[in-house]
Amino acid sequence: MPMLSTRLARWIPLIGWLRDYHRDTLTRDLLAAVIVTMMLVPQALAYALLAGLPPEVGLYASMLPLVLYALFGTSATLAVGPVAVASLMTASALADIAVSGTAEYVGAALVLAFFSGVLLLGMGLLRMGFLANFLSHPVISGFVTASGILIAASQLSHILGINGSGNNLIEMATGLASQLNEINVFTLLLGMGVWGFLLICRRYLKAWLTDAGLSVRHAELLSKAAPVLAVIATTLLAWWLTLGEHGVALVGDVPSGLPALALPSMDPGLWATLLPAAILISLVGFVESVSVAQTLAAKRRQRIDPNQELIALGLANMGAGVSGGSPVSGGFSRSVVNFEAGAATPLAGAFTAIGIAIATLVLTEPLAYLPKATLAATIIVAIGTLIDLPAVREAWSYSRADGVAMLATLLLTLVHGVESGILVGVALSIGLHLYRTSRPHSALVGRVPGSEHFRNVQRHRVETDERLAILRVDESLYFANARYLEDTVMALTAHQPGLEHIVLACQAVNGVDASALKSLEAINARLRDAGVTLHMAEVKGPVMDRLKGTEFCRELTGQVFLSTYDAWCELRDEALPNQLGSPVDASVNVAASE
Amino acid sequence: MPMLSTRLARWIPLIGWLRDYHRDTLTRDLLAAVIVTMMLVPQALAYALLAGLPPEVGLYASMLPLVLYALFGTSATLAVGPVAVASLMTASALADIAVSGTAEYVGAALVLAFFSGVLLLGMGLLRMGFLANFLSHPVISGFVTASGILIAASQLSHILGINGSGNNLIEMATGLASQLNEINVFTLLLGMGVWGFLLICRRYLKAWLTDAGLSVRHAELLSKAAPVLAVIATTLLAWWLTLGEHGVALVGDVPSGLPALALPSMDPGLWATLLPAAILISLVGFVESVSVAQTLAAKRRQRIDPNQELIALGLANMGAGVSGGSPVSGGFSRSVVNFEAGAATPLAGAFTAIGIAIATLVLTEPLAYLPKATLAATIIVAIGTLIDLPAVREAWSYSRADGVAMLATLLLTLVHGVESGILVGVALSIGLHLYRTSRPHSALVGRVPGSEHFRNVQRHRVETDERLAILRVDESLYFANARYLEDTVMALTAHQPGLEHIVLACQAVNGVDASALKSLEAINARLRDAGVTLHMAEVKGPVMDRLKGTEFCRELTGQVFLSTYDAWCELRDEALPNQLGSPVDASVNVAASE
Repeated sequence: MPMLSTRLARWIPLIGWLRDYHRDTLTRDLLAAVIVTMMLVPQALAYALLAGLPPEVGLYASMLPLVLYALFGTSATLAVGPVAVASLMTASALADIAVSGTAEYVGAALVLAFFSGVLLLGMGLLRMGFLANFLSHPVISGFVTASGILIAASQLSHILGINGSGNNLIEMATGLASQLNEINVFTLLLGMGVWGFLLICRRYLKAWLTDAGLSVRHAELLSKAAPVLAVIATTLLAWWLTLGEHGVALVGDVPSGLPALALPSMDPGLWATLLPAAILISLVGFVESVSVAQTLAAKRRQRIDPNQELIALGLANMGAGVSGGSPVSGGFSRSVVNFEAGAATPLAGAFTAIGIAIATLVLTEPLAYLPKATLAATIIVAIGTLIDLPAVREAWSYSRADGVAMLATLLLTLVHGVESGILVGVALSIGLHLYRTSRPHSALVGRVPGSEHFRNVQRHRVETDERLAILRVDESLYFANARYLEDTVMALTAHQPGLEHIVLACQAVNGVDASALKSLEAINARLRDAGVTLHMAEVKGPVMDRLKGTEFCRELTGQVFLSTYDAWCELRDEALPNQLGSPVDASVNVAASE
Repeated sequence: MPMLSTRLARWIPLIGWLRDYHRDTLTRDLLAAVIVTMMLVPQALAYALLAGLPPEVGLYASMLPLVLYALFGTSATLAVGPVAVASLMTASALADIAVSGTAEYVGAALVLAFFSGVLLLGMGLLRMGFLANFLSHPVISGFVTASGILIAASQLSHILGINGSGNNLIEMATGLASQLNEINVFTLLLGMGVWGFLLICRRYLKAWLTDAGLSVRHAELLSKAAPVLAVIATTLLAWWLTLGEHGVALVGDVPSGLPALALPSMDPGLWATLLPAAILISLVGFVESVSVAQTLAAKRRQRIDPNQELIALGLANMGAGVSGGSPVSGGFSRSVVNFEAGAATPLAGAFTAIGIAIATLVLTEPLAYLPKATLAATIIVAIGTLIDLPAVREAWSYSRADGVAMLATLLLTLVHGVESGILVGVALSIGLHLYRTSRPHSALVGRVPGSEHFRNVQRHRVETDERLAILRVDESLYFANARYLEDTVMALTAHQPGLEHIVLACQAVNGVDASALKSLEAINARLRDAGVTLHMAEVKGPVMDRLKGTEFCRELTGQVFLSTYDAWCELRDEALPNQLGSPVDASVNVAASE
């Protein structure tokens, strides 16, 4: 029986690695936490803005959730907190429920976070993480690109100093167009200035810093501090020039201190309304988090346990829901910074939470002067990495089906909103996958002369026998393709009148479901009626284990051969007993291009 | 360029076989038509009753549709016309639209037939027959069994002489229970009498007839005439005893003559309401028809073209819709009789249509005296073959997933109705299939000493090398299982610190979709970061064709080997250059049960 601590460590990975914690690890984690905190403060405010929530909600979502993830997560470097896509999805889910910024709206955001957490925890405990697989890569990719475009469009209004709204590109564009005469020049100048500054920093700062003598790693880290610089500079500017009085929207009063703990609303009607959004937010967040965590873990040959990640992200979101925060997941850019800054254990995340708590205690007064346009510019520059239009062409050129799924998700998300985009994408992925496997590749094979190898009669010069057809099936058999196999076999029988034996070569058949079993039974019965014997060859162990004891195996008119060559020897000899040993075999036709 | 007649024959198979039509074929077709007509008259009336339609609708559905199928169908023996399951589905679809028996109800039935026909024809022209594959065998089987039970329950009321109603078992049972005091004794006696007579005939008549000196085939055919006997006897009885005046429900006035041709209602609202039902009726009808047709065609080594069947069944249903008929498909029992009676070409069906037309002209007067209870008993005995409860246990024991899908379809159809039953079944089939393939079987393999064969290290004593891991992937890679492969490979890397090379052996990989491609790219990048080289082996031709030119192939850190053995020789030698030729290799561990 394993020791209690070992068993506990399975559920709380922290116990496992805390034993090896020493001064050096502590220094690394503390340094990483300081850097990530500096990056996270403006991001937390910005993503709250994006979600239509008061700024403190972003800060609250960056405290308790980080501590919970540190306790239960398996990634040493995943930086959990508010992220762009989840914030957009939150805004979209809450748009029909309440007016942005009201207590009702904030309350619904807490429910959404808590509910997503419950779903993630449930999937983790029931080991149902496979559900995330329904989000195929083209769907996620198309969705994230569309989200990036929607986020950029939604932030444009903050840079123009007008009130934007809308859940899709059309609504946003109409909203913007109708208010173009209300543009605030100060806001526009400030926003464009920050945007330009951030773009220049992104492109040149790292090179300048290395030229100035800094190591590549330090230059890399410092260049990520550009948004902090912009925040400090524009806050001072806004305070000094009293920009708020000139119509520049500022963050305004942020309550100082830590959030109060309280369960979110348990109104079943509200939960029911939020269910679809909670499912999508939790699945998308999980997929993105695990992908980031695995990429970073691999660099250190560490391992991520996706199931434990579900539990950790679930508890983190439930934590957000009870401490005034919005939905959280692992952010890509912050995790990379955390990794590069040297974070050694999940404790770095917990230290970041402490950093944010300190910021909430001491920085709220100056943050009141921070212009929203600065945050908007920060977001627009940050989400540039999300938008990946060449991926559409790439997916299209690799496979039409995947390209269609990606394009449909992208366009529908843009013009109709995040939920319909992702749902239609998932449905399309599944439908196209079933279509693709519904016509399994199969080939009539013949023997490569003098060998035990069998190849496609249409591609190779091989020996065949008109009384014997060997059909190699290149796909697992299941309901979507079982009837196609019936058609293929029966067409073969109808077109080859001399046929006496059909061998199904099953080396590529990894599974046979109940529908395919019925089809095999039908094929066997129909072939028997037609006077043709059905044989199987190269059936895999696990498949054979299942077939044993079924009616199909009892009724099979022919045999199950270990190899195609065994079948060839046995059936050919049987069919042509008087031609054994004859070097030239009249009944064998060598098909070059049948 | 093919001759016009050859091209026409592709669309109208009749042209192809009419050239070989001679006196013998004519005799066979005529004989079969007479027998099938005798069987079809009571069935047509009975299924109209089941669908809640006036009796003549069943007769109309047995004329024009049969002629159209004869022109366009590819099966020589499929007997098209009203069938039990489609009639139940029609009743269920129309229940919420109009009151049974009204002109509105009949009008909606015509729309349903025409609409199903349009859908079938569309699927045939667009070659989208694969859609029918979504109806997996467990779903169809569970659905048909549940339909059989529902049909039997619905006919019980006719035998009891009360007004039954309801679209599911619960509604039907409550309906029956509340009217038990209204049972008509004459109806009950008559109904039970016919039921008993038919059961006895089914069990013993064939044996009696063969004992009496008839050939097995003739005895078989004659025993199918039992319902005709029952119809004649009870009609005479009802006329002689004026049973109608004693509360026995009779078929009543059937308009004499042929149906008028007219387009059904084109009300878009009605079409929209009927869309789900039309889809399900057309798909279920198609699946059942093709299955029957293929089974019978195989006995004569004939071929069914499923796509042409879609067109033929589509035109037949459109024909039903414009000539006063309800939805039609290929019936199992009638087709078997048609086959056994010797039908040689689809013309047998056209002759049957003429038979029904004659019956409609001369038999309507006596048919008015036919008790409905007789028809109900005919249905109950006939649908006995639909109910197959052992199939549930069989599917369950073969595969839990299939068993669950079948049971869910069966129970939901019984307690909630046909449409929700079949839709949930389809969703479950797809979900469970994706779940089943989401954790692809994979195995670490090692070399069988002295051979070029590689086997699972956990099942066989094989040579392995701690710097080299060969992972055989036993499933096509697509979005549902791509991330699982990422986990598997990364776990391998984390647990085997000395690892330098990973080879993915892909002999069972029949496809790699865009999601899996991205996962392979991620695996390659992560392994590179971890200092491990990724190789591929035994990649199939079509898969390799696709992978060529992708980023994955350009970035692949290792090589693509033709065979696993090539990979073994190359990578092992490279890893252990100083141990070449050494007969005992210290670094090779022979794993018996790792």
